[in-house]
Amino acid sequence: MESDTSKAAEHLLDWLRDAHAMEEQAETMLTSLAGRIETYPEVKQRIERHIVETREQQRLVRGCIERLGGDTSMFKDLTGKMMATFQAFSGVFASDEIMKGAMFSYAFENLEIAAYSQLVEAAKFVGDAETAAVCERILQEERAMAQWIEHNTPGLMRQFLMRADDPESQAKR
Amino acid sequence: MESDTSKAAEHLLDWLRDAHAMEEQAETMLTSLAGRIETYPEVKQRIERHIVETREQQRLVRGCIERLGGDTSMFKDLTGKMMATFQAFSGVFASDEIMKGAMFSYAFENLEIAAYSQLVEAAKFVGDAETAAVCERILQEERAMAQWIEHNTPGLMRQFLMRADDPESQAKR
Repeated sequence: MESDTSKAAEHLLDWLRDAHAMEEQAETMLTSLAGRIETYPEVKQRIERHIVETREQQRLVRGCIERLGGDTSMFKDLTGKMMATFQAFSGVFASDEIMKGAMFSYAFENLEIAAYSQLVEAAKFVGDAETAAVCERILQEERAMAQWIEHNTPGLMRQFLMRADDPESQAKR
Repeated sequence: MESDTSKAAEHLLDWLRDAHAMEEQAETMLTSLAGRIETYPEVKQRIERHIVETREQQRLVRGCIERLGGDTSMFKDLTGKMMATFQAFSGVFASDEIMKGAMFSYAFENLEIAAYSQLVEAAKFVGDAETAAVCERILQEERAMAQWIEHNTPGLMRQFLMRADDPESQAKR
């Protein structure tokens, strides 16, 4: 099959590997974040739901890679570097940790949104309808998570600042 | 004035400093990116327009910081770390550089969107209408840039992959 050896098909496979590495990193970060949240139960609950989605996304992306004859053992340098920072972040305990967590999670979800948007187009380009459908499905879940963060940020901020000004309260996470 | 010494007001000032550092980093990254783009003139042009906006945003944020009695010499560790990675990225020349550039720029714009969304709420909370208005204005510019990237990604991807499969073409940037 011609498209299997085209540059476009090679890029598609590379990007699927990047996406798989990204989802593995997402699981690590989200698990660490959820484990540290103490006083924002609704945030913790939403993250836990997204961890379940993330594991399923890993499985779906792995399925696409294997169907295209690739494996998930490699991932590209650049994504690895980016992921390492998000990981470094997930170990930081700042006084405004819950708000920084919301901010970086929103950026990370949007990194995933960009990745899957590109994958949908690349899969369509090489005529791989199944990969396009899988990536479209994951894209919707990432969008839902990003929208949840956006929608809940104003309330979270007010709650955080009210607690910050209350000496009895533990606001930071 | 009570609110000047509240924890909430301290957070607001810290976050404005973070935003200022973020805009400085944005200028460095965008300048590097625009300087390397060779075969996607419409992307280069949009980035150059955003560099002009970014410089004005730095000035506006600095104005808020100075009005609140702060200075821009410090910025918080976490943001510094995050920025360093985006900077590291801006030095990478991958074979799919234009697509990775679009992806990371989209994530970065959304990091800025999250930061200014939080700042708008924090400024309203402490009753600083001027900072809220400045951050709301910048937020709209960041959203416009993110939307531009999102809107242009499908076409950019098709162009990239067509060129990737054409041995005569220089697709990567």
